[in-house]
Amino acid sequence: MENISSYVREHKERFINELIDLLKIPSVSADPAFSQDVINTAEAVKSALEKAGCDLVEVCETPGYPIVYAEKIIDKNLPTVLVYGHYDVQPPDPLDLWESGPFEPIIKKTDLHPDGAIFARGACDDKGQFYMHVKAMEFMTSTDQLPCNIKFMIEGEEEVGSESLGWFVERNQEKLANDVILISDTGMISNEQPSITTGLRGLSYVEVEVTGPNRDLHSGLYGGAVANPINILSKMIASLHDENNHITIPGFYDNVEELSQEERAEMAKAPFSLEAYKNALDIEDVYGEKGYSTNERNSIRPTLDVNGIWGGYIGEGAKTVIASKAYAKISMRLVPDQNWKRITELFTEHFKNIAPAGVTVKVTPHHGGQAYVTPIDSIGYKAAAKAYADTFGKTPIPQRSGGSIPIVALFEKELKSKTILMGFGLDSDAIHSPNEHFGIWNYLKGIETIPLFFKYFTELKS
Amino acid sequence: MENISSYVREHKERFINELIDLLKIPSVSADPAFSQDVINTAEAVKSALEKAGCDLVEVCETPGYPIVYAEKIIDKNLPTVLVYGHYDVQPPDPLDLWESGPFEPIIKKTDLHPDGAIFARGACDDKGQFYMHVKAMEFMTSTDQLPCNIKFMIEGEEEVGSESLGWFVERNQEKLANDVILISDTGMISNEQPSITTGLRGLSYVEVEVTGPNRDLHSGLYGGAVANPINILSKMIASLHDENNHITIPGFYDNVEELSQEERAEMAKAPFSLEAYKNALDIEDVYGEKGYSTNERNSIRPTLDVNGIWGGYIGEGAKTVIASKAYAKISMRLVPDQNWKRITELFTEHFKNIAPAGVTVKVTPHHGGQAYVTPIDSIGYKAAAKAYADTFGKTPIPQRSGGSIPIVALFEKELKSKTILMGFGLDSDAIHSPNEHFGIWNYLKGIETIPLFFKYFTELKS
Repeated sequence: MENISSYVREHKERFINELIDLLKIPSVSADPAFSQDVINTAEAVKSALEKAGCDLVEVCETPGYPIVYAEKIIDKNLPTVLVYGHYDVQPPDPLDLWESGPFEPIIKKTDLHPDGAIFARGACDDKGQFYMHVKAMEFMTSTDQLPCNIKFMIEGEEEVGSESLGWFVERNQEKLANDVILISDTGMISNEQPSITTGLRGLSYVEVEVTGPNRDLHSGLYGGAVANPINILSKMIASLHDENNHITIPGFYDNVEELSQEERAEMAKAPFSLEAYKNALDIEDVYGEKGYSTNERNSIRPTLDVNGIWGGYIGEGAKTVIASKAYAKISMRLVPDQNWKRITELFTEHFKNIAPAGVTVKVTPHHGGQAYVTPIDSIGYKAAAKAYADTFGKTPIPQRSGGSIPIVALFEKELKSKTILMGFGLDSDAIHSPNEHFGIWNYLKGIETIPLFFKYFTELKS
Repeated sequence: MENISSYVREHKERFINELIDLLKIPSVSADPAFSQDVINTAEAVKSALEKAGCDLVEVCETPGYPIVYAEKIIDKNLPTVLVYGHYDVQPPDPLDLWESGPFEPIIKKTDLHPDGAIFARGACDDKGQFYMHVKAMEFMTSTDQLPCNIKFMIEGEEEVGSESLGWFVERNQEKLANDVILISDTGMISNEQPSITTGLRGLSYVEVEVTGPNRDLHSGLYGGAVANPINILSKMIASLHDENNHITIPGFYDNVEELSQEERAEMAKAPFSLEAYKNALDIEDVYGEKGYSTNERNSIRPTLDVNGIWGGYIGEGAKTVIASKAYAKISMRLVPDQNWKRITELFTEHFKNIAPAGVTVKVTPHHGGQAYVTPIDSIGYKAAAKAYADTFGKTPIPQRSGGSIPIVALFEKELKSKTILMGFGLDSDAIHSPNEHFGIWNYLKGIETIPLFFKYFTELKS
């Protein structure tokens, strides 16, 4: 592809400013207080796709937040790439740990981003990463180098389970027909060593409620005589792992894919420093399932984490109360061959079984999705690998991620296509955390690399 | 004492309205947002004590909230009764469970209070109960029947540990000199069966903080590979009780007073229906230390309860986060011979010991106090028993309470006097809970009974 580097250099300032404008809209899908902002973001995405040269752009209504669909079909005989992304973001809490406003983007240099990084909620996950595709599209159309057909599907509920996306995909299989799906919503090892995510974990996310007495009680008058829902919930959560940090839910491991020693040895070759990992998190030691390395624990093994817990008096000072109710949000990351709906059932059944007399338990499933593995001998993988090799000067390493993009499995089921995950973020970019950021070097490198994927995919496919 | 019933009947409406006015001021000592209200309440108490006929009334400055001191000394050769109470109240949370505003008192009938009860935070604990003494004082002075000297000490930090009271008592031993201390801040068995509290549990209240990684993390990328502070905190809390619900802190039971079989048999005679208890709380079963009855578990046995827990994402919807920190407020109720400061040390040491590598633990002691037992052969107890017998037509039963009034032990140490706990509330009055209330019958019966205590105490003492 011609002139791509110079095009990016020339338009760099505008590319950054456009992304900053998009990051200013607080599109927090989890919190109904931001619903108008989420809808406004969809309109902004529509406008950006029109300007980038799409022929058709629609804001499609769904039972939840709208999905922005766009396309440019140049020749029905050429391959079609479907780009997926999401314009919603994680809630910014805890706000007090942000060094600047989560929706007031600023550029600061960091050790890993000497050219500067944009700090804002959604900078990397996923506004910054899907917007690379919008700018790559602009380059290809404005320089008349688009080699194949392109479709965009940018949704607004990824951070809350993509329910409407499932609904939309089922109803629009023809419209969404494609040869490969391209997503930038993952990371890579480092700016010196690119990698392509070939595996994603599945997810089951539930909320639990433990009820003891029918009202809050004075802990002096009732303490020790009735089941305290917070103590009981703690006990129940504690019992979900055994002394080796294996999960104790009966049947949980039944279908877990076991990797061979060879595969594990291959994985272990990826560059990784346990000392650097611990230092970056300020922890004395790592902690996890016995018999597995840190990289295995967060990629090929299923896990269970409490994401939130609350109950009783949590204000300033002291209150001597036994709460009537205690709550927790719990998520399980799953690996290939675990069925997330079955796991949700197993969790629910087990959690109710272990509740002692004196409390009642309610389990509410939130959302979930299947794990996914991409073959590295596919045309899509090969095209992506060649694109990275061109712009980074280094062949990317295939890598399994611990994260979940549940809709990847849905795409395979409904649209019968494989997904290629071309991520340009770094682990240290603090996605889902305060001070999320995205390196400007990474943003521009992504815009430069993506058109090459289109080129190589079209060439290899023909 | 003459005309006491008719006096109460005649002034009933005014007595109720005066209490309602006092209940309207939100004197929440735990929350700095209410500090001006707490101070305003002290002024209202001062004014009420002046109107009730005290000769000297002072709002005494302390390092915290002021203490209202008042006295009427009629003859230095007569005995002196020191009345203690507190004008601060518990926080009203959770607000959504109140049927009417916690600081908008209303009168409603209940099954146990067919003459109506005043619903408001502090109605029973302790504004309603200390105000009975103010009105009893009014009766005795206005009818010229005060039989002895009287002193009042009404504080504003009881719900947060009475720190300034300790400071004040140490510095004012002569001013506070007395023959007996009288407190109405406890309950009785029922309106048909009065009882006098002869034992109180001690308390140690701490806050714990568990820190894992130095920032909130994405639970997909890090889940299973680092210690999750919420899971760890749950595990640590769970481990504080063994399978028999004994507390596992080494040394915790070292000095626990063991009651004889005879004493336990005597206690078991108090009227108690386990079925009614469970029905009132909507629980299938009680839960507690093996080998002890419900009444023993919440009176003669030490206990440990979590009063609040929080960490991670607790908003609406789902967030896949591993929190950097998790917190809990934990209180231990103690029994005679357990030293609360030693117990706080033992807890702190143990809690730090059980933390696994990968997290750090901080324990912050809040406040505490010693347990207390009052002898039933004292003049004070006998005077109280006679007073109840006169107005209720039934001899009161001595009873140990599970609650704590840590300052009772402090009084004994600093002022060398015994405390008599004449409570008129019921267990079902929901103190520390939403919809706290105090029966109007109980309020008026208290005003009628208290002057008789003064009469009998003076007679027995001379």
